Amino acid sequence: MDDPQIPEDPVAELITNYNELNSCIIEDLDEEPSPLEFMRFVARNTPFVVRGAAADWQATRTWNVEFLKDFLQDESVNVAVTPKGNADSPTVFTDSEGNTTLVFAKPHEEDQPFSTFLDYLIKQEHQLQPTRPQQEEEEVRYAQTQNDNLRHEYLALFSHVQRTIPFARIALDREPDAINLWIGNSRSVTALHKDNYENIYVQVTGQKHFVLLPPVCQPCVNEQMLRPARYERSSSPSSGNGTNTNTDGRLELVVEDEKAERVPFATWDPDLPRENQTRYSKLAEPMRVTLNPGDMLYLPCMWYHKVSQSCSPEGVCIAVNYWYDMDFSGPLYPLSTFVRSVSNREI
Amino acid sequence: MDDPQIPEDPVAELITNYNELNSCIIEDLDEEPSPLEFMRFVARNTPFVVRGAAADWQATRTWNVEFLKDFLQDESVNVAVTPKGNADSPTVFTDSEGNTTLVFAKPHEEDQPFSTFLDYLIKQEHQLQPTRPQQEEEEVRYAQTQNDNLRHEYLALFSHVQRTIPFARIALDREPDAINLWIGNSRSVTALHKDNYENIYVQVTGQKHFVLLPPVCQPCVNEQMLRPARYERSSSPSSGNGTNTNTDGRLELVVEDEKAERVPFATWDPDLPRENQTRYSKLAEPMRVTLNPGDMLYLPCMWYHKVSQSCSPEGVCIAVNYWYDMDFSGPLYPLSTFVRSVSNREI
Repeated sequence: MDDPQIPEDPVAELITNYNELNSCIIEDLDEEPSPLEFMRFVARNTPFVVRGAAADWQATRTWNVEFLKDFLQDESVNVAVTPKGNADSPTVFTDSEGNTTLVFAKPHEEDQPFSTFLDYLIKQEHQLQPTRPQQEEEEVRYAQTQNDNLRHEYLALFSHVQRTIPFARIALDREPDAINLWIGNSRSVTALHKDNYENIYVQVTGQKHFVLLPPVCQPCVNEQMLRPARYERSSSPSSGNGTNTNTDGRLELVVEDEKAERVPFATWDPDLPRENQTRYSKLAEPMRVTLNPGDMLYLPCMWYHKVSQSCSPEGVCIAVNYWYDMDFSGPLYPLSTFVRSVSNREI
Repeated sequence: MDDPQIPEDPVAELITNYNELNSCIIEDLDEEPSPLEFMRFVARNTPFVVRGAAADWQATRTWNVEFLKDFLQDESVNVAVTPKGNADSPTVFTDSEGNTTLVFAKPHEEDQPFSTFLDYLIKQEHQLQPTRPQQEEEEVRYAQTQNDNLRHEYLALFSHVQRTIPFARIALDREPDAINLWIGNSRSVTALHKDNYENIYVQVTGQKHFVLLPPVCQPCVNEQMLRPARYERSSSPSSGNGTNTNTDGRLELVVEDEKAERVPFATWDPDLPRENQTRYSKLAEPMRVTLNPGDMLYLPCMWYHKVSQSCSPEGVCIAVNYWYDMDFSGPLYPLSTFVRSVSNREI
């Protein structure tokens, strides 16, 4: 087409234009921004990291395995259980006839005594040493309820972190909608997804490895409408599960009813870029950042993020995040929907 | 199409979604916002008006016809001259064979003594009384050079306005790129267009009537690639032009060379909604606001605006605006280009 106003592929042009105007290297701040400085990042929907911002928090200074076990003891906590650390992930389901489909796998959820859960994480993590064979059959556990758990389930620990992030509270003029605690080991990976929240993520112990994509990269992530499925424990006891929990059945992936509402979900993994790619995936320029204990990440609303983790020498990875409601007014939200609508027609 | 992810018309969905999430009534503030409050408006690319914010400015208190004529006397000023007040407007051009095309009409520009220019505006404005027949042949004059004229051509007046708008300077962390003075009468109308600037507009005397459309309304404005044209004074003197200027030739619209770069420009007028409409124009919900003397408008970057004016009883309309460079990083600029690219293919 000759008219310069009509590019051959507007979706490719969008991603290329964005990449030209924005760096894929995250901005690294020496100290927390002022509310106004933060609001500038919100306005341009751009992440940053503040190294050591939470280094002095009581959580960062005191939360280790001994302290937490003493503190919470056998308190019952909700644990997400999956065979491969794939809670809330696109997962291949094989039916009884051997046919495969990609489904959205939700974890089995069960309550476990906190100390049992923590012992399990640590034991499994230490088995991951290169000199020992990985036990493929072993289930993966992750405390990852994103329901404001630090002000409910883990309320006893809440006073060890900040009640809010002052620069965000002042800038956004609101209290956090949810504050979540995440406890897991390196077997759990959070699949690429996005949230309609402004997110402040704080690393307490261990490391988190983020792969980030801006909202305009929606056409790269191969969003599909997946049938929901959930892991369930079968009633038959598994063989060789030596942990002292009350849960010993094997995990079985059960696909929900045909009528269950399908879940739109990214199926492209920036770390396996040739699998499940769209014609636009190769244009994505992922931003990568690793959080060390005490680091704070601003993850703007609607950014895609994949999160993997490394453990502290003790064998756990712990983080806290603050979700602030995003502002749905203004152009960003309807424009993001527009990108999805257009690219779903193009692909 | 059955898939809810693929609407039949993504462009219509975009405009409808935007309208549902945003009011078309402008926010009316009692006092100037703090830098942080302003940044929240910048972040959501949303206009506001502050009534009386500039009521105490020396300009608002002292600029009347007598004062300005005393102050500037016969200083030479640049004046945009058009037959119908259509500087920088889509205009029908009729060639020697009677064929018509829509062109982008730039004004004839000439220097005039300030007092002569002001007398002309006032005399013409007072002729517009309903009891007197409008003189169709009479040219329209407008001081509207948007080249930082208040810090150059009209430097003598600059100390009567603020050097910058503090809340904007602090929030955006920059000085204004341009400060422009506008002097005209009710015969001039600025056609619907957009600027890549954050704009603070201050009314000094008379009124400005804004019709505003957000950037997502690009598909409504019927942007076309227009051939540029410019009004030129013919050398033959006009008949019956009784003003005492040194410029008495008639205005003639001269279309630029075929090779001249075409100008992308909105051709839809929200005040004549059935003319030049696109299939999306009817979805637009224009925001309308009138500025009275001392009022201040925040016009966010990339908003379409049509501006007409009413005069003070003395017969002039005077305003000042501050342009701050917009931030091209972040998603808004590439997404706006995307909307244009997609809708140009749809229409």
